[in-house]
Amino acid sequence: MKKHTLLILCLCCVLIAKGENGYDLWLRYKPVGNKTLLQSYRENITTIITSGSSATMDIVKNELSTGLQGLLQTTIDHGAAVNRHGAIIAGTPRSSPLISNAGIAIPLQQAGEEGFVILSKILNGKRCILISGNTEKGVLYGTFHFLRLLQTEQSIQQLNIISAPKIRLRMLDHWDNPDRTVERGYAGFSIWNWHTLPGYIDQRYIDYARANASIGINGTVVTNVNANAVVLTQPYLEKVKALADVLRPYGIKIYLTARFSAPMEIGGLKTADPLDASVQHWWQEKIKEIYTYVPDFGGFLVKANSEGQPGPQDYKRTHADGANMLADAIAPFKGIVIWRAFVYSNENPLDRHKQAYDDFVPLDGTFRPNVLVQVKNGAIDFMPREPFHPLFGAMPKTPLMMEFQVTQEYLGQGTSLVFLAPLFKETLESDTYSKGKGSTVAKVIDGSLEHHPLTGMAGVANIGNDINWCGHPFAQANWYALGRLAWDHTISSEQIADEWLRMTYSNNPRFLKAASRLMLESRDIIVQYSNPIGLHHIMGTSHHYGPAPWVNNQQRPEWNPVYYHKADSGGIGFNRTATGSNALAQYQPAAREQWENMQTCDEKYLLWFHHVPWNFRMKSGKSLWEELCYQYYTGAERAGKMQDTWKSLQPFVDKQRFEQVNMLLKIQHTEAIWWRNACILYFQTFSKMPIPASYEQPGKTLEYYKSLRFPFAPGI
Amino acid sequence: MKKHTLLILCLCCVLIAKGENGYDLWLRYKPVGNKTLLQSYRENITTIITSGSSATMDIVKNELSTGLQGLLQTTIDHGAAVNRHGAIIAGTPRSSPLISNAGIAIPLQQAGEEGFVILSKILNGKRCILISGNTEKGVLYGTFHFLRLLQTEQSIQQLNIISAPKIRLRMLDHWDNPDRTVERGYAGFSIWNWHTLPGYIDQRYIDYARANASIGINGTVVTNVNANAVVLTQPYLEKVKALADVLRPYGIKIYLTARFSAPMEIGGLKTADPLDASVQHWWQEKIKEIYTYVPDFGGFLVKANSEGQPGPQDYKRTHADGANMLADAIAPFKGIVIWRAFVYSNENPLDRHKQAYDDFVPLDGTFRPNVLVQVKNGAIDFMPREPFHPLFGAMPKTPLMMEFQVTQEYLGQGTSLVFLAPLFKETLESDTYSKGKGSTVAKVIDGSLEHHPLTGMAGVANIGNDINWCGHPFAQANWYALGRLAWDHTISSEQIADEWLRMTYSNNPRFLKAASRLMLESRDIIVQYSNPIGLHHIMGTSHHYGPAPWVNNQQRPEWNPVYYHKADSGGIGFNRTATGSNALAQYQPAAREQWENMQTCDEKYLLWFHHVPWNFRMKSGKSLWEELCYQYYTGAERAGKMQDTWKSLQPFVDKQRFEQVNMLLKIQHTEAIWWRNACILYFQTFSKMPIPASYEQPGKTLEYYKSLRFPFAPGI
Repeated sequence: MKKHTLLILCLCCVLIAKGENGYDLWLRYKPVGNKTLLQSYRENITTIITSGSSATMDIVKNELSTGLQGLLQTTIDHGAAVNRHGAIIAGTPRSSPLISNAGIAIPLQQAGEEGFVILSKILNGKRCILISGNTEKGVLYGTFHFLRLLQTEQSIQQLNIISAPKIRLRMLDHWDNPDRTVERGYAGFSIWNWHTLPGYIDQRYIDYARANASIGINGTVVTNVNANAVVLTQPYLEKVKALADVLRPYGIKIYLTARFSAPMEIGGLKTADPLDASVQHWWQEKIKEIYTYVPDFGGFLVKANSEGQPGPQDYKRTHADGANMLADAIAPFKGIVIWRAFVYSNENPLDRHKQAYDDFVPLDGTFRPNVLVQVKNGAIDFMPREPFHPLFGAMPKTPLMMEFQVTQEYLGQGTSLVFLAPLFKETLESDTYSKGKGSTVAKVIDGSLEHHPLTGMAGVANIGNDINWCGHPFAQANWYALGRLAWDHTISSEQIADEWLRMTYSNNPRFLKAASRLMLESRDIIVQYSNPIGLHHIMGTSHHYGPAPWVNNQQRPEWNPVYYHKADSGGIGFNRTATGSNALAQYQPAAREQWENMQTCDEKYLLWFHHVPWNFRMKSGKSLWEELCYQYYTGAERAGKMQDTWKSLQPFVDKQRFEQVNMLLKIQHTEAIWWRNACILYFQTFSKMPIPASYEQPGKTLEYYKSLRFPFAPGI
Repeated sequence: MKKHTLLILCLCCVLIAKGENGYDLWLRYKPVGNKTLLQSYRENITTIITSGSSATMDIVKNELSTGLQGLLQTTIDHGAAVNRHGAIIAGTPRSSPLISNAGIAIPLQQAGEEGFVILSKILNGKRCILISGNTEKGVLYGTFHFLRLLQTEQSIQQLNIISAPKIRLRMLDHWDNPDRTVERGYAGFSIWNWHTLPGYIDQRYIDYARANASIGINGTVVTNVNANAVVLTQPYLEKVKALADVLRPYGIKIYLTARFSAPMEIGGLKTADPLDASVQHWWQEKIKEIYTYVPDFGGFLVKANSEGQPGPQDYKRTHADGANMLADAIAPFKGIVIWRAFVYSNENPLDRHKQAYDDFVPLDGTFRPNVLVQVKNGAIDFMPREPFHPLFGAMPKTPLMMEFQVTQEYLGQGTSLVFLAPLFKETLESDTYSKGKGSTVAKVIDGSLEHHPLTGMAGVANIGNDINWCGHPFAQANWYALGRLAWDHTISSEQIADEWLRMTYSNNPRFLKAASRLMLESRDIIVQYSNPIGLHHIMGTSHHYGPAPWVNNQQRPEWNPVYYHKADSGGIGFNRTATGSNALAQYQPAAREQWENMQTCDEKYLLWFHHVPWNFRMKSGKSLWEELCYQYYTGAERAGKMQDTWKSLQPFVDKQRFEQVNMLLKIQHTEAIWWRNACILYFQTFSKMPIPASYEQPGKTLEYYKSLRFPFAPGI
């Protein structure tokens, strides 16, 4: 290729090099930097051959064109026949004779309905690469995977990739309200501009679909679980239809939250009792109406009888009664019902930890086949570190769907660099022992343990209308991680970080080494400076921003931090053993064993399960109080060092994103010190022990920290 | 220049050509398309010579570099001496010996404090272009003006430009709340992310400052006139300081809204009485505190005793008492107080139109010299068409500041293409006759009529966090127009449209001809299909979206559309003559004359000033009812034709922005038909006359239009 083309380096590039705004996510398709690889790519990619003319295949074609043009800095021809080396042939066996005659039936069979194959083949005596699947959606996923190989500078010689998703429903849950506020959103406001729908299709919607398709997400719940029923009214269904039409060619189904009281609020009925015939009829008609707008509507997500939401228990019916009523009504349309297990009320005054299990385990086996019960990764609420939820493994007859939180409600919100793949993996790899050793949460979720065909994993989205979608540039990695793990939960955090960094920033090995360490340690660091040794739920009230372990004035006991840490002169921590709430009894004995003895308990969860004396001897040899100080101080110090690491990466990062992360890491360090000082000073009022003299003593008083107010913190 | 550079045309350009997201506004600096001009520009621009090393001069240098690089597609060297043709020399006479020795003292004198000169000169025997001003701010304005010459493909031979702003304070008023909602905002949410300030400086803040500097805006009120006092507390002042530091090098001062009751709400006082010594002391101390954070703080904008806001009248003091108290406190710091004249209460039950005049005229001459009274362009509230506000010309001893609304609260909000320069100009060119013929509103505002040194024009911003800043791609033109007219109100709407279109879209003459007609007619069209013949304030309650002339159930009479149109079996319109409210008496006789006789009244304002019988004979020969139908139908038809015009421009516009405008014009047409049908059907219940058979009859009933609800319309 003409050398001066590259040397002249277009001025647009120069302008762009000043800064990237992050809108392009991991789909930047920047020129391949490694010259040897670039040469090899260009030799192996000379023509694009696609077949079929559906909306999805148009996307495949455009994505290959745009992607390869950007990566290889040259225009790749589209062709129809294999007459030279380097054809990229994308299509299904149905639409492409080249594919159907290529002898790849066996790998295709392994790919299943949504999977794909990427295979190096000699056709017509020429080297080709086939990207195929049994459905066009599979081809689309394969296309993005193929481009990712180039983006991450992998070899494309002798490709023999067969990939099928381990989980069927791979979803994002948006907690977006119709007024465009986003509950627990830290990236601006909702990308769904309901007011201008259906007439105006924001480019965002298209780019959202594309980004999700690139990581295998195939479903989205566009409304908040706490939202009102307006989305089910006719004017809004027209808007939903317009969105569904955008998402469909990208293989994404739309789901809605169903407010249980909708028959009363928008239907004019006097009851929402699931066993009432008029209620059943109302839902049947409403669902029929929805499917006239969206023929492939996915189904409903329901939060019922939790945190003030209406539900079947209002009529003395069970969660199963409620879920099954909706499931029966939607079954003729092949829709599903996702019923959330995140429930708590005053009925388990001793320990909120136990309630979902108590409510749902007795219902196992009573749900319709098109119902999934969606369970948060832990029993409290997306804490920085939680043991796995005891429901996993405890409802063998019911498909349990995982609910992770991608938005960082309790993990530094919009201002902290926290890579969540290690958190997700920690839960997924936890052993429930429900069918003996090796009965991991992942196997519960992917259906392999109990042979459920219907499986799902959802992430509460961290997406807003900030230009870079997620607020913190590194928060994009958590969206990415959710998609990749929903596709294949065996991928390591290291691999996810590496892929994302290469695509989002740079393939430079020096950059990758330091930046991936930054990511991989980050979740551990925030746990350490905010909720070490199993502490949990000690954040600020309502907005959940920053520390407030002292709060004890909330209406319901389980809304107060003091309920969770139970600090007193005798010690700190929640006794969930047999001498306490006995939440531990909800776990299998083998799982329980790692936690139930204070002396041997995994210290990550010590204060989660035990009320521990201040002078308890930790494995480190320190007293509990000293260890607590050590953890808080070490965490805050490590948070400070993240800035140094990032600064060392300046040569590899464009100006705008470098500065963004730099400013945010500085804020994060300030927040880490705030957490450290506020918590230590507060807990010291119980321990009555000094902060070891080797540590810098807090410069502000506990009263100061208590006085801080954030009346307009986001995401409430 | 190497021809292949241009032919190879970088791939980034190709990618970008797919679509522009509008973020770059009118500062795109795309390659000059006219080859002859490009050649001439390259010959006349070879070196950039700047002097001084302040933050502002760094911006000048960067802007010239980036701008010229983009426009000329070549890198322009920076130099220090004139040793070849084509030096662009930017600086003040103080910092640049080249400038101070160039013999341009006389033009510089004419440029004043903020103005600039752009002059072709021979220095050292070489052709140069000097961009200079007496201040660096002037040089910055000159720089943007120079780049605009290239962007709009003007000749740069024999330049002899001297430009000074006609108005001193050229401001944007943001109605942005601390929770990031924007009152009357239709472009997403507030760009001010208070939560992450001061630590995080969004690139938006910098680009906002740059865009404003490019059109001469030199002040911004970042908080809503209805906002609470939190912005005056210490944590928020730290945030304000961070913003001020970003804005300062761009020549922009920050202003805040002062909630009159702040001494009680955040100061703990029992009163906010402006004559109370403790209140005065509180403000003195608060202002002192503000200036420690922002040494060049601009001052306060105050909405007092209007629409429920607190104010001096709560203590039986006058507006002057309130304004002067703040003015005295801020005077030592050279700050100013902008006091809004938009007041109304039940005290003028007959006609809200009259109240500001009645309240303020008696106070003329009693305000301190550092007080400006800010008056909306008309007496009601930013209606699609209003006669000029009777206060203009009626307070000769007080500097009156113009308040325009750039955000389209009553002009189609976020979904309509309405170019507002013709509206602004209509007011500015109105003759108040206060000092005889030619006493235009513009002359009142620019101080020339009464020799006021302190002058101002503000626009209520239409800026939000949508990627393209303003929601509708054409709404950017209204931000641009406000800036340009505040600098020089004699510029024509045609020129503004032409400049903006060239910079934002294309210099192609075919494009410009059709697109500028589209813009220039647009305001007339929306008046015609929404509020023809002087109708006003007949929009939906609260959100102000769409028509609702039937509303008659609002708490206060002047909140009801029926108060304004007064339709009955006898006719329609508000009698503001001597036989009615006599609001006309507030105008000078010569001004009044054009309106006071129903037979001769300018028909644009007929129903504004008169209650007119349905069969009144209009100048067209039609009856009033027929004319009303004609106007509504013609307006809606013209709105429909805007789509055709735009479609014809597809070859000249990138895909993304073309589609955006296309979708929005379709929505606008639907809204136009909605306005037409709803208003005609409603007024028909009084006229009892048929819609002429030649028109398409409404397909929906009045009841249907009355039933429409928009519970989540934006901007409330």
